[in-house]
Amino acid sequence: MRPSHGGAGASRRRIEAEFTENSGPLSVSVGNVHGMAITADHLRITLDGPFHDTREKVRVDLSREQFTPRFIPDLEEARAHALEQMQLLAGDGYAANGFRTEHGGTGDAGAAVTSIEMLAMADLSLMVKAGVQWGLWGGAIENLGTARHHELYVKPTINLGLLGCFAMTETGHGSDVQELETTATYDAAKGEFVIHSPTPSARKDYIGGAALHATVAAVFAQLIVAGENHGVHCLVVPIRDEHGNDLPGVTTSDCGYKGGLTGVDNGRIMFDHVRIPRDNLLNRYGDVDADGVYSSPIESSNRRFFTMVGTLVRGRVTVGGSAAAAAKVALTIATRYALQRRQFSAPKSDDEVPIMDYLVHQRRLLPLIARSYALGFAQNELIAKLQDLQGSDEEPDPQDQRELESRAAGLKVANTAFATRAIQECREACGGAGYLTENRLVQLKADTDVFTTFEGDNHVLTQLVAKELLTSYADEVRGMSPVEWMKFATVTVSDVVKTRTAALQIIQTLLDTRQDNEEDGSLFNRGTQLGMFEDREEYLISTAARRLQGASKREKDPFDAFNFVQDHVMHTARAHIDRVTLEAFIAGIEACKDKAAKELLEDLCDLYALSVIEEDKAWFMEHRLISVERSKAVGRAINERCRTLRPRARSLVDGLGVPDNLLNAAMLEP
Amino acid sequence: MRPSHGGAGASRRRIEAEFTENSGPLSVSVGNVHGMAITADHLRITLDGPFHDTREKVRVDLSREQFTPRFIPDLEEARAHALEQMQLLAGDGYAANGFRTEHGGTGDAGAAVTSIEMLAMADLSLMVKAGVQWGLWGGAIENLGTARHHELYVKPTINLGLLGCFAMTETGHGSDVQELETTATYDAAKGEFVIHSPTPSARKDYIGGAALHATVAAVFAQLIVAGENHGVHCLVVPIRDEHGNDLPGVTTSDCGYKGGLTGVDNGRIMFDHVRIPRDNLLNRYGDVDADGVYSSPIESSNRRFFTMVGTLVRGRVTVGGSAAAAAKVALTIATRYALQRRQFSAPKSDDEVPIMDYLVHQRRLLPLIARSYALGFAQNELIAKLQDLQGSDEEPDPQDQRELESRAAGLKVANTAFATRAIQECREACGGAGYLTENRLVQLKADTDVFTTFEGDNHVLTQLVAKELLTSYADEVRGMSPVEWMKFATVTVSDVVKTRTAALQIIQTLLDTRQDNEEDGSLFNRGTQLGMFEDREEYLISTAARRLQGASKREKDPFDAFNFVQDHVMHTARAHIDRVTLEAFIAGIEACKDKAAKELLEDLCDLYALSVIEEDKAWFMEHRLISVERSKAVGRAINERCRTLRPRARSLVDGLGVPDNLLNAAMLEP
Repeated sequence: MRPSHGGAGASRRRIEAEFTENSGPLSVSVGNVHGMAITADHLRITLDGPFHDTREKVRVDLSREQFTPRFIPDLEEARAHALEQMQLLAGDGYAANGFRTEHGGTGDAGAAVTSIEMLAMADLSLMVKAGVQWGLWGGAIENLGTARHHELYVKPTINLGLLGCFAMTETGHGSDVQELETTATYDAAKGEFVIHSPTPSARKDYIGGAALHATVAAVFAQLIVAGENHGVHCLVVPIRDEHGNDLPGVTTSDCGYKGGLTGVDNGRIMFDHVRIPRDNLLNRYGDVDADGVYSSPIESSNRRFFTMVGTLVRGRVTVGGSAAAAAKVALTIATRYALQRRQFSAPKSDDEVPIMDYLVHQRRLLPLIARSYALGFAQNELIAKLQDLQGSDEEPDPQDQRELESRAAGLKVANTAFATRAIQECREACGGAGYLTENRLVQLKADTDVFTTFEGDNHVLTQLVAKELLTSYADEVRGMSPVEWMKFATVTVSDVVKTRTAALQIIQTLLDTRQDNEEDGSLFNRGTQLGMFEDREEYLISTAARRLQGASKREKDPFDAFNFVQDHVMHTARAHIDRVTLEAFIAGIEACKDKAAKELLEDLCDLYALSVIEEDKAWFMEHRLISVERSKAVGRAINERCRTLRPRARSLVDGLGVPDNLLNAAMLEP
Repeated sequence: MRPSHGGAGASRRRIEAEFTENSGPLSVSVGNVHGMAITADHLRITLDGPFHDTREKVRVDLSREQFTPRFIPDLEEARAHALEQMQLLAGDGYAANGFRTEHGGTGDAGAAVTSIEMLAMADLSLMVKAGVQWGLWGGAIENLGTARHHELYVKPTINLGLLGCFAMTETGHGSDVQELETTATYDAAKGEFVIHSPTPSARKDYIGGAALHATVAAVFAQLIVAGENHGVHCLVVPIRDEHGNDLPGVTTSDCGYKGGLTGVDNGRIMFDHVRIPRDNLLNRYGDVDADGVYSSPIESSNRRFFTMVGTLVRGRVTVGGSAAAAAKVALTIATRYALQRRQFSAPKSDDEVPIMDYLVHQRRLLPLIARSYALGFAQNELIAKLQDLQGSDEEPDPQDQRELESRAAGLKVANTAFATRAIQECREACGGAGYLTENRLVQLKADTDVFTTFEGDNHVLTQLVAKELLTSYADEVRGMSPVEWMKFATVTVSDVVKTRTAALQIIQTLLDTRQDNEEDGSLFNRGTQLGMFEDREEYLISTAARRLQGASKREKDPFDAFNFVQDHVMHTARAHIDRVTLEAFIAGIEACKDKAAKELLEDLCDLYALSVIEEDKAWFMEHRLISVERSKAVGRAINERCRTLRPRARSLVDGLGVPDNLLNAAMLEP
């Protein structure tokens, strides 16, 4: 078979490719190379945002030879390698950031999330294993446990004396975790819980660490005390002895090879009446005393469950950020390749054309780079919000907590869907060379592929965002099935809280300068772009309310009524996430200290905003938010920005902040 | 990390899932199960088309245990397994179909292509290895060689006594193969050609078979005779001895692990002044006599090159069909899973809802199933056309040959892009379970990923289709760089030949019944749908012509002028391929012998046509081919067809014709 765009092409210096562009206002002379590098530095600093220091430290730490990206096809070898890397990291002290000082950590949630996210640039298996150990297992101990658990488990979790896993998902239930089938039944006579898998579909499944390394599991199970089910709670259950053998009543098995993440030992667990001491219940939100009396600070079992799950939001934040970090690697590789790879001769010249000069190629890569920046700024805001809430000694305000969870869900969806699409495009843009593991793109794709699924399926999370948005973060909504929620929404949906997290003032100022005339130029007006994002979101919200009411009147079957509006509801959520992301981009630009970098970011922000509008321009026309003529102008405006940004492509990807040693793609020239 | 939609769910019988649907006109009682199976049989027979017998034979042959799909992570083991399977197939007599009776084959091009394509359902590495040996290497011998080559090579190629490879692509040149750097210089004194790789980028790259199994290569090189370059020709060059060692002057190396296709031993070849006898030139279209005089039946070196390459069109046809076959497997797995997997409770019921009942899930899978049928019918037409042209004893009519090549390129793009998208969607639709290799989807994705690249990069081929279409298959166009072509097009583009291959009469009758009123119902009128496809294509072609002329006047730099219209030109090609595909669907329905199956196909064709329109509806509005109100109605019409087709989902995927033993997904209930 004949691949195309193959190989590295005739050797030509990068700087030449960077500067041969002859269109656009940013043509620069070679004498400006130094200036370009400085701009890239400022881009990186700006995009790193409040977490610049942490990110720089991780970049240095990952420059050690053991973190050079490797493709390891063998399951055993890959798992061992991931564990070895994790042990190195444990020595670097990252893990302590995830735990409060009084529990034995250093209490820096932002650094905890950021440093795990950065690992994705080197090795996604390492990132997932670290996320399981310190984020999920450690997070369950930290947030659902009490002093006795913190004393016992935090230290060995940090230093890897104890390897844990997070046993929530079952074969039969992934998205609807309130319906888990595993039971934890209290035996008052012996003061023990009995953990049991009553059916084949109650099997814990896909659990990272369960196949091999974990000796203990945070098991989510229906808590049954004196015949009463108090809903899903989390308990610490030892699963293996020090030789790696299953403990009595525990049967683990191996999920085997997956699409990627070969270094993660995902496995399955069945429990056959496994007994654990009463103390092993993580009892911050629900406890059973020695006599078998259940108590909880939260009366509603529904609210209790979502409070517990809500404290674990960090996992979702990390997954989104990590997918985005992998996409940054892919975009850097594909763009640098497009600057060196030449194919087909140029007019009046013996030289062949760098493929980055083709407009179609620019349109494949540059809007993705723009989106990578946009999502990066939004992710920084999200982490800062998480740090605020989880860093405080007080219980978080419920409204703030709901907004954090909703934002985390929305950005998890946006980041992971983006990564899947961007990495795929990068692979294809590098042709046959892109298909070799030595050039990394296929492994990045394979490893991140499940990110749209785990920590909440993207389709389910999108609906969660919409539910929260349309019913104003009403507490009753949690735990409702999609259909139940719709029935609730028909009577409650109304004015929706408009939440802005960043740069409120600048955004209002921009909106005041909005230009809605038909001239192409006005599409580059930030107020106009923002206005279009806002108009779309508001229109979708208000019409969703009307359709929800209409549908339940018209359709006899409530399920049909739900189906009738499901796509509209999901569209609302996506429009919301887009608006939040654009606002974060604007706030990010505001914070940039360098004039040249700032100007570049302004152009990039145009490209982001216009690309989002273009993808939905049929909707904008259908709802008369843009005219037919203006819709055509959007495509022209995108082409114009591609031409403007083409000569700065190298600076833009350098600004994504992937260290050279983490690219490690054989085809790239130094 | 917590995956969602995990596992197989509570065990519930498939038939229940099939018939619990309570909306739509096709609600049927369980007594109808037999009728459903018969309908599926008729769907399969109709979709198999003229190649039903071949496809049924392959289904039986692939039911042997050795063809049960397996995931083999190890490179060596996977390569050995693919070769073993190929040896079994050689015994089945498939390979002889690809060669003319007078050359030692059985001369059935349709069966040759169809049987290799069907292998993709079992093992894509096997399909690629078989395609390389019998299609590419064998095709070069068959089509570019003369009697002396047929006598020497055809038999051992068929029975695997000789393993060949196809050494066209180089590190530096994949899409632009006229610029290959390898040279074949004639040494008249010794009556030999000297094969040489003058630069690092002249290295043959990604060559299937070159890493391990092939002992001989069909090498494409610039033919230099007495100092004159006659352009790229193909020569037979032995590369390994019987012990697998490189022959003197030959240096092979291994491309190693790729994104998938682990069973294919892709490699690289460098030649250092390797001498081969004069007889090794495949001399049908260009020869060198003993005295070193070059002669060719085709004067123009450009036309000669494209005539040679044109005879190899079969490879492109096979690659498109194989990607589509893999997508059929994925769609069958994901749909059957969606019928058994339940999540979230139904209203007024303790039962959970099969995920196939959610409209959003229907919209993920059903339009892809519809497109799978559409492309299947189009592929059958293409193979029939190939069979006609290559089965005849006469040289094909040049216009027919150009149309065949253009159609092959267009459907290669459509099928492979579709496969990438469909398999990805199927993986995500199966959640965590979809990420395990035991459920096959990830391997199907990984193996087919390069299909958008090899046998012609999709972006390059799309432009090729447009070039042919816009310049009426003018001979001068071949070999022009994109920019050169544009300059040519500005003066020649005009009335374009409208080529229909199928059912001309029925299509005209349908167009006469076109309803362009604003009622939603008229969107289900086939004439209306066809008319919209035709209008779009014609509009794009005529405006492309105008823009090509305008751009070259306006822009000073011819490269800028080209960039200005490149996306429009590519859009034209896509619209053309869509129209051809819809016509093939219509012709396919006409050929269906069963009333129930025919009705089902009519609904499915609606879904295909409306999905294509929806994806481009912004364009339709921008060019006033549909109104804003009608655009909204398209979405409603798609939802309506999803509801109609939901109860028939199982029949539809059964009709795709993937034998149960080739599904082999652990999560599927029998």
